[in-house]
Amino acid sequence: MHLAEYLFRRIHELGIRSIFGVPGDYNLKSLDYITPCGLNWVGNVNELNGGYAADGYARIKGIGAIMTTLGVGELSAINAIAGACAELVPVIHIVGYPSTIIQKKRLPMHHTLADGDFRRFARMSNEISSAVVVLEDKSDATRLIDETIIECCRSSKPVYIGFPADLVQVEVDPSPLEYPLGLEGPSPNPTADKDYGVDLILGRIRAAQNPIIIVESLAGKPHGLNTTRLFVESSGLPCFTTPMAKGIIDETLINFRGLYVGKISEPTVFEQVLSSDLILVLGPRPTDFSTAGFKTDLPHIETIKFEPHRIQMQYQGTLGLDMKGVLERLSYVFEKEQSGSVSTNSTASTPPRKLDGTPDIHGNISPSSNSPKESVNGHEFIDFEGNILDKSRPLTQEWIWPRLASWLEEDDIISADIGTAAFGTIWTRYPRGAIPLTQFVWSSIGYAVGAAVGAALAAREDEKQSQGARCRRTICLTGDGSFQLTAQEVSTMVRRKLGIIIFIICNDGYTVERMIHGMEAEYNDIQPWDFKLLPAVFRAAPNTARTYAVRTRAELNMLLDYPSFGPAVHYDEKNPPPLRIVELYMDKYDAPESLQGTIDSIQDKH
Amino acid sequence: MHLAEYLFRRIHELGIRSIFGVPGDYNLKSLDYITPCGLNWVGNVNELNGGYAADGYARIKGIGAIMTTLGVGELSAINAIAGACAELVPVIHIVGYPSTIIQKKRLPMHHTLADGDFRRFARMSNEISSAVVVLEDKSDATRLIDETIIECCRSSKPVYIGFPADLVQVEVDPSPLEYPLGLEGPSPNPTADKDYGVDLILGRIRAAQNPIIIVESLAGKPHGLNTTRLFVESSGLPCFTTPMAKGIIDETLINFRGLYVGKISEPTVFEQVLSSDLILVLGPRPTDFSTAGFKTDLPHIETIKFEPHRIQMQYQGTLGLDMKGVLERLSYVFEKEQSGSVSTNSTASTPPRKLDGTPDIHGNISPSSNSPKESVNGHEFIDFEGNILDKSRPLTQEWIWPRLASWLEEDDIISADIGTAAFGTIWTRYPRGAIPLTQFVWSSIGYAVGAAVGAALAAREDEKQSQGARCRRTICLTGDGSFQLTAQEVSTMVRRKLGIIIFIICNDGYTVERMIHGMEAEYNDIQPWDFKLLPAVFRAAPNTARTYAVRTRAELNMLLDYPSFGPAVHYDEKNPPPLRIVELYMDKYDAPESLQGTIDSIQDKH
Repeated sequence: MHLAEYLFRRIHELGIRSIFGVPGDYNLKSLDYITPCGLNWVGNVNELNGGYAADGYARIKGIGAIMTTLGVGELSAINAIAGACAELVPVIHIVGYPSTIIQKKRLPMHHTLADGDFRRFARMSNEISSAVVVLEDKSDATRLIDETIIECCRSSKPVYIGFPADLVQVEVDPSPLEYPLGLEGPSPNPTADKDYGVDLILGRIRAAQNPIIIVESLAGKPHGLNTTRLFVESSGLPCFTTPMAKGIIDETLINFRGLYVGKISEPTVFEQVLSSDLILVLGPRPTDFSTAGFKTDLPHIETIKFEPHRIQMQYQGTLGLDMKGVLERLSYVFEKEQSGSVSTNSTASTPPRKLDGTPDIHGNISPSSNSPKESVNGHEFIDFEGNILDKSRPLTQEWIWPRLASWLEEDDIISADIGTAAFGTIWTRYPRGAIPLTQFVWSSIGYAVGAAVGAALAAREDEKQSQGARCRRTICLTGDGSFQLTAQEVSTMVRRKLGIIIFIICNDGYTVERMIHGMEAEYNDIQPWDFKLLPAVFRAAPNTARTYAVRTRAELNMLLDYPSFGPAVHYDEKNPPPLRIVELYMDKYDAPESLQGTIDSIQDKH
Repeated sequence: MHLAEYLFRRIHELGIRSIFGVPGDYNLKSLDYITPCGLNWVGNVNELNGGYAADGYARIKGIGAIMTTLGVGELSAINAIAGACAELVPVIHIVGYPSTIIQKKRLPMHHTLADGDFRRFARMSNEISSAVVVLEDKSDATRLIDETIIECCRSSKPVYIGFPADLVQVEVDPSPLEYPLGLEGPSPNPTADKDYGVDLILGRIRAAQNPIIIVESLAGKPHGLNTTRLFVESSGLPCFTTPMAKGIIDETLINFRGLYVGKISEPTVFEQVLSSDLILVLGPRPTDFSTAGFKTDLPHIETIKFEPHRIQMQYQGTLGLDMKGVLERLSYVFEKEQSGSVSTNSTASTPPRKLDGTPDIHGNISPSSNSPKESVNGHEFIDFEGNILDKSRPLTQEWIWPRLASWLEEDDIISADIGTAAFGTIWTRYPRGAIPLTQFVWSSIGYAVGAAVGAALAAREDEKQSQGARCRRTICLTGDGSFQLTAQEVSTMVRRKLGIIIFIICNDGYTVERMIHGMEAEYNDIQPWDFKLLPAVFRAAPNTARTYAVRTRAELNMLLDYPSFGPAVHYDEKNPPPLRIVELYMDKYDAPESLQGTIDSIQDKH
């Protein structure tokens, strides 16, 4: 078996079906192996966009891959790879290298600094990857590939595989492929003390009058997602989430109570957290944007922090236990209690209540909140007989995000650029299974367009398994400034027939930067674009793309409620849903309260 | 004086008037100082494009600058900065950092990996920069800024200045600004042996029957450009240039003989080089693309290699002398000889001949070669009375590059993407003062659009000095695949009213990659775009942009000869020339002979 085939068979084994990237001089021969190995070459417009797409794909499928060429290609992608590292997204970055002979001779080749140093770019990637390997010899190549892929999965961070052109076709032993890779790995901590630890934690939970859960981002990574969900559901404890952790917990659960971000939380959320006497923090990973400037800790309330490989109890000290194992054991106890075999006095034993409505972001129950067509925020009505109220009321950030949230469906993927889009959507309540793709740590604008391409491909691959399946919608929320950075990736949406719905906040520039500094500064302005022409630039076939310009609430209501605009359709390979681009014209000084609050809090303005 | 003002005053002192980049959270406060310091903030669409623009600007003005923000911004630009390093282009990269207090506390901020390490990205840039500094304290900040800028100029490579937000407004001593920076620096080599060395070299030149000069890329950098030109002109020796060195020597000189690339040179060029008995190589920097795979050395012919700080004589050994000083001394001798005071028997003493025509690329003299309107390659005729011959003959790579070259004017800037565009144009002869912007080492496709923005701004700044000056034209030659990577920077051309002329080879994908591998492979295909719609997307004002689709030779002839299309105009701030986008439709398997020859030679196919 050729080494390139070995690599791509391993990648296939991970569940990956699409490889992102751009062809280049040193990766062309490997590209020949992609299709024969059952994989799909996407062919992005540039490498940065390809990197974002691999990230978006990985957030849906669990892991992603991108292929670039030495120097020019890999460095163009490196901002996206660094983002995957910051956000803990496993992405395999394969980089085509010149032949090992050229490298040994240290020839001054193009795509290098012409100094004979062929490890320079690998060293750069080493700063933002959990493993970096450049294959040099067929004797250990398959072992190095396996180890690097395992490290990618276990660390949930990007890895780098340098692949010289003359190793593509070397013959290697295919027998390791008979055994699937051990991706989860052994627990690094002993389990002997687990019973003791679980009893200790259970004791604290049962002693508490009002214990709550705050889910943070590490609770979903790596491999912790299902355990976290099980624990939240089986415990029934009031559960809050931080902005970065959104998407981990089903927000329609009766015990889900909203987004906790210290003082800039909704007041009822902040009150509930403040009135608790025990906080179970799952997977803490505090960062400035997720904690309003590190102001969410409440040291006067007893706290147990569940980290991946240790548990910090405020008064009992640190336990050397894995979060996953402990949460599983606790969930088992709660489930047994619910089935009646054990009885306690804690909230934990209360089975989920059944209610007519679902709670809103404040934790209030409103029976009508599932009927967005009749009422949005209680006072806009839309009527298909032609009676439109509030015809000329402008779109505002305060109004638009709950309105869009009310239009979301189950399992929607919402790719949102940091700025008014991400801060706006994160604070709304999502339907079951809906997940945001955002970069709350890395915060690179332009991410949302690329990530949407990857996510939409991932979703379609799953749907292809069963003709007639309901298509997950991929919705891209971005701003006019952010969109310009990566706009050409809409070409890939057209080329690969991805019926993504793109909402572009058209508000004359970088509003998030205006909020930070330079409200009126020219450097926060941009060239206005006519986004509606883009499908024609990219030569979208007739009826495969639609564009809209929306300036008032009535127009947006009408659009969202229009049956042919938005609802998810059933999978039909020959008739995919169209690409939709919606320009949303809004005031340039308007920003979501959550964004302004976060910035003010970071800048110590309150 | 605030530290930010100090920095930008130093940058102004270098002749820089435009700063490229994108605003970001950590650089906003510094941006406030740009306009008051007499500089212009360009505001690119993304950082990669901004980096290319700073590179293009530096190639015209001598040095350029880009400003980005920590992590996301700087890493998006890093491929362009690495390109400047590979191509020896001095670019100052200023990166906005969070405050020194945040850094000392190692807070997990956005735009980082949330691990408290704020030097990670500086270490990455260190691999592709000649100096990296992150300012930490006001006490040494102005000294570090000065040293870093000096290093940028002396090395002719990028440097990196990390600028924390809380240092922007600290008060510093402005007195160092009273003394301009010493950019050239002392010669690292002693001059005592110069007379001996010059005599030795002169002796070899005079002993030779047929000495020639081959100009390589280091002959123009840093600070060697004028010396090299003087030497070539005063010596009168037959002079050849390598692809990377194009633009250093005036190609209308009588002793300029064409492009030397070993066996893939034009046959008459190769014969002339082969028949010489002494080769003076100025500034050698061999790379694969510039030497057809390292096949240009002719060890059987006596060679003297002039490197920046040493001179290697094939039989006399190495002299520890600076190229610049020696070439100046030799030029002085040749100039004295020409003025009649010395008489020798060597070619060096022959004064430039006056001729009716200029020599073509083969070194042949053709009196009619200055009249492209009458004849192109001897058999296409265009006639404004309406008689067009060869109406339906398609555009070919063989035909189009000499045709475009015949249309070039003095001082044109030709920004060409590596691929058929760069290989096509490099092999043609340019008018006096015309220079190519190409990346023959780094070879990053998409470069040409960004570089054109920077170069056009640089040219306009010079023209602004005198109202009514003739505008240098900036011409961008790219391919449909290359153009897609950075297409949105055309928005900056519209925004900043840059009347660039863009020719896009529309040949259905990455033809340069097809030549290397995968002639029919789908991965070398792209989504076809309708480039003509782009000015409308970017909301170009009426009459400020024109677009053309050209499919035949007659159409291109008509376009190029049309008086309102191309000729350089005089500077008029209120009436700048329009942006022009020309689609050139060509066969996807057609490539310039020089490109095919280079690839075959690198792959040892002949």
